[in-house]
Amino acid sequence: MRFTAPVVLPCDERCTVLRDAAVDVDPAGRITRVGPLAGAPPADEVVALPGLLMPGLVNTHAHTPMALLRGLGGDLPLMRWLHEVMWPAEGRLDAADVRAGMVGGCVEMLRNGITTSVEMYFFTDAVLDAVLDVGSRVVLTPGIIAASGWDRLGTWEQMRDDISARIDERGVRYGPGDRIELGYGPHAAYTLPVEALASVAEHARARNALVHIHVAESAQEDQQLRAEHGSVPALLDKVGLLGGRLLAAHAVQLSDEDVALLAARGAAVAHCPGSNAKLAAGIARTTALRRAGVRVGLGTDGPASGDDLDLWAEARLAGLLARVSAGDAAALTAAELVLMATRDGAAAIGRGDIGVLEPGRWADLVHIDLTDSAFVDPGDDAQLLSNLVWAAGSRAVRDVWVAGEQVIADGEPTRVDRAVVTADLRAAAARVRG
Amino acid sequence: MRFTAPVVLPCDERCTVLRDAAVDVDPAGRITRVGPLAGAPPADEVVALPGLLMPGLVNTHAHTPMALLRGLGGDLPLMRWLHEVMWPAEGRLDAADVRAGMVGGCVEMLRNGITTSVEMYFFTDAVLDAVLDVGSRVVLTPGIIAASGWDRLGTWEQMRDDISARIDERGVRYGPGDRIELGYGPHAAYTLPVEALASVAEHARARNALVHIHVAESAQEDQQLRAEHGSVPALLDKVGLLGGRLLAAHAVQLSDEDVALLAARGAAVAHCPGSNAKLAAGIARTTALRRAGVRVGLGTDGPASGDDLDLWAEARLAGLLARVSAGDAAALTAAELVLMATRDGAAAIGRGDIGVLEPGRWADLVHIDLTDSAFVDPGDDAQLLSNLVWAAGSRAVRDVWVAGEQVIADGEPTRVDRAVVTADLRAAAARVRG
Repeated sequence: MRFTAPVVLPCDERCTVLRDAAVDVDPAGRITRVGPLAGAPPADEVVALPGLLMPGLVNTHAHTPMALLRGLGGDLPLMRWLHEVMWPAEGRLDAADVRAGMVGGCVEMLRNGITTSVEMYFFTDAVLDAVLDVGSRVVLTPGIIAASGWDRLGTWEQMRDDISARIDERGVRYGPGDRIELGYGPHAAYTLPVEALASVAEHARARNALVHIHVAESAQEDQQLRAEHGSVPALLDKVGLLGGRLLAAHAVQLSDEDVALLAARGAAVAHCPGSNAKLAAGIARTTALRRAGVRVGLGTDGPASGDDLDLWAEARLAGLLARVSAGDAAALTAAELVLMATRDGAAAIGRGDIGVLEPGRWADLVHIDLTDSAFVDPGDDAQLLSNLVWAAGSRAVRDVWVAGEQVIADGEPTRVDRAVVTADLRAAAARVRG
Repeated sequence: MRFTAPVVLPCDERCTVLRDAAVDVDPAGRITRVGPLAGAPPADEVVALPGLLMPGLVNTHAHTPMALLRGLGGDLPLMRWLHEVMWPAEGRLDAADVRAGMVGGCVEMLRNGITTSVEMYFFTDAVLDAVLDVGSRVVLTPGIIAASGWDRLGTWEQMRDDISARIDERGVRYGPGDRIELGYGPHAAYTLPVEALASVAEHARARNALVHIHVAESAQEDQQLRAEHGSVPALLDKVGLLGGRLLAAHAVQLSDEDVALLAARGAAVAHCPGSNAKLAAGIARTTALRRAGVRVGLGTDGPASGDDLDLWAEARLAGLLARVSAGDAAALTAAELVLMATRDGAAAIGRGDIGVLEPGRWADLVHIDLTDSAFVDPGDDAQLLSNLVWAAGSRAVRDVWVAGEQVIADGEPTRVDRAVVTADLRAAAARVRG
């Protein structure tokens, strides 16, 4: 199948803007060719798109089933919000609720152009079933936690072993179009004993699996662990977690030494500017991390704190916060922000098969409506990228494909009925509220 | 005419959520009653809306015709951006261009639920004609400036006199549904001589007109004027500008004394967090201003820096920046942010006739789609407000009325064809680019 469009953004290293280009996709859903339409070999079936075609966005940190809890206690300070509202509500969730929340959240993400999300949550089968229903793509790192109130889900050893057994049975990546990847989600250094972190590191490394962990999100966490272990990254290094495929979510409270350590070990960061600001955790040092060579992707976090599951909004906010922090109105360019949401996000989770339009990668595609008034001069490359990031974003997303299969058509999901999905989500939310 | 809805947000002082309520509007377009549907007097014509009804948003600082220039040079540092890109491009604008940009921008604002904008621009007739075409509402404070490159538009005295003559001829407020208000737009203390500021103050005060001026936006401006005059607010006070109806746009660089002075004089602030962050001007001291009793509205600024003309996005950003600045996750509540975008914005510009649904005010109304998955539990007041601000925003705006006249129906403008508007805007943009 061939997709043609007047504008194609492959999201290559230089964020090239191709004009009148074609993306060819094989029956399995992998890209076979990206380039000018002129001179392309003949194609059987052609989908001629009138707008801009680009790779699907990669959300590197989410707890999407929390779409159920969105807006609960949103005006409380962090600790009261967690202890009085969030954790009690999460304690009432069952597998069906998690599934309803995940379906609703995945539909919303797809409509915003997010094709892949990295999820840390519980009720693994419910999360995976939801993704397979909706047709999106997930890297699920089921949570591993040893904190009060969470032992109803088992010990950390059981949580770890469940993941290892699943990977040993089916492999790290599987499903139609490789839609599912499994990894380990040790919650945080402050919610697990040191030996648990070390053990998860071993299990993950033996299976070449991603480890996804909250790192130095709040000042409180940072201060405590800095006093005890030098810093959160220093502790993770000591237990062997930094050497493997490590994705550090948030990473707000970092010293220069921490940044250098993450860079030296090849660890990656999931930057969640919206959640960090809303919960008053702080502003992550994105510019320093990028300059040090750390791979930085973007994350929405869960919709109970990040709210809108809109990675375009996160990209804009990342740019705004980097600029105002640095006092430099050119700190992050529009092109750099587009790449953070796609190519860099894929790189941050070690996925060479998504996030870029190039032969061999999955055809996860987003079609953007260029008739939107956000686009003042679509013929000018720089202005097009600027308008895409700073003015259009999610509202201009029209169609979405995952592994070559259309999952959003003119803004609506193809596999599920959005009204039913929303009704299910609300019913589950009402039940959880009790 | 009666509008009914399951949820009505009048935007009263406490941000009350009314259930199953009615808003009655007289033939002139003024609200006559807001309250429960049960017990309401009989009505002839009823518009039964399925979602949420609230007042139109008030954008307190904009240069909307710059929709034409959106995305030009967006990755340049501030001074190069102004001198190499913006000012030369603005030098090529004629009245027809300004009109095309204003029509396009007003349509976009209406679709985002913004019914009123406070504009500082030139080609006064073109701006007013555009507003009357589209059916939105404007407070136009034509620019008064004495800076190099701008003398093609005349002297500051001519600019001042043009405004005074217009007000003397037609009054401060006029047009169908009072859609037009005129005021004075002295550009800034650094682009006008002191005697110009003093003279504009006199002209405005004699006519009880709004004065709208850029105040302490950048550190550079602040340092220079602080050294010469104590501070920008101190200078404005000295020349008599602070005592009248004064709207200070940006007001980023303020000392405690400046905040106290603005409060003592009853001056108001147009807070533009997106523009200030994108241009790396800084983070305004919203919390301190509000605590001191200064009226603070929200502004998008011109779409060449603010880009998206979305006041919901500005409200969210105002909340995020206030929280991360204060280190307090409860610094601004969802209800406070809703009121900043409506009630407080109207108060900031001294307009007791818009921004709130109550008898006597104009029926500027926005209908929000509550079937959007952003709304998890529309029956819960706190969660509804949280979802409205943090997750739904502009994408949920369905219908808009100004002075009782429907100007947006199911997302599309009623008076103009959006495809034509966009084509006109692009043609003008292409011409200006040259």
